[in-house]
Amino acid sequence: MTETAAPLHLEDLAVGQRFTSPSHTMEAEEIKAFAAAYDPQPFHLDETAADASFFRGLAASGWHTAAVTMRLLVEGGAPLANGIIGAGSEVTWPRATRPGDVLTAVTEIVEIKPSRSRPERGLVTLRTETLNQRGEVVQVMTSRVVVWQRGIRPE
Amino acid sequence: MTETAAPLHLEDLAVGQRFTSPSHTMEAEEIKAFAAAYDPQPFHLDETAADASFFRGLAASGWHTAAVTMRLLVEGGAPLANGIIGAGSEVTWPRATRPGDVLTAVTEIVEIKPSRSRPERGLVTLRTETLNQRGEVVQVMTSRVVVWQRGIRPE
Repeated sequence: MTETAAPLHLEDLAVGQRFTSPSHTMEAEEIKAFAAAYDPQPFHLDETAADASFFRGLAASGWHTAAVTMRLLVEGGAPLANGIIGAGSEVTWPRATRPGDVLTAVTEIVEIKPSRSRPERGLVTLRTETLNQRGEVVQVMTSRVVVWQRGIRPE
Repeated sequence: MTETAAPLHLEDLAVGQRFTSPSHTMEAEEIKAFAAAYDPQPFHLDETAADASFFRGLAASGWHTAAVTMRLLVEGGAPLANGIIGAGSEVTWPRATRPGDVLTAVTEIVEIKPSRSRPERGLVTLRTETLNQRGEVVQVMTSRVVVWQRGIRPE
């Protein structure tokens, strides 16, 4: 497993490279606040309602887990020199994120496609597993991001 | 185009049904606040930095667009009786969401798969286009959600 914090350009990347992010603890208050703003359903907002629901207890919105994962990528989990600029993403949530869960994002480069028409840039596919403190996968995110060669100004 | 606000169960759904959500205006301050919390990159945080970036102006995080879309679905854009419980989602962002954009989510049911082992529930695929005030698509989200028959308690 390769670990690095240096900002990487297209020519620094290789399939199989892996990066581990810092961690983030999901507090119940943050779970409820995100849900109130963006996913106001009872099982994300209130412990009692959540106990009686499909989730059997308070669970974070999947979009909250995705947003926290994005922050972990920006904070070092995907050290790309020009930032993390996504064209799209596929996300699955194999298990719920719960209050107190400590999340870490582990990312692997699974594909690098240099642009034919613009060889100074490439489309890189990242597969990110978001793990809780027991090493259980709470989210798998596969993202396609644009990465530039060193010395190229993105445009 | 079928429009309805009544909460729907599995037996009420049909491929081709469409739903239109309420609208939401993306204010610059909300774009920056979401980015500060979940996607702190210069082109989402600051107009001047964004002008000099790939985005040529402040752009919302794609995860912010996804989160707002989820709220629009909960607010009537996907009137499912047991709530919107997703197993996963695929998202693409064909163009940036900008300050002042007025977003609406238009959702179509594209597949219904009753569970073989548990006929009281089904896996329903929703395709949601998030449109701005000019009718341009800023996001396409394809989600797989669990839906129950009438009178069944989700578990």
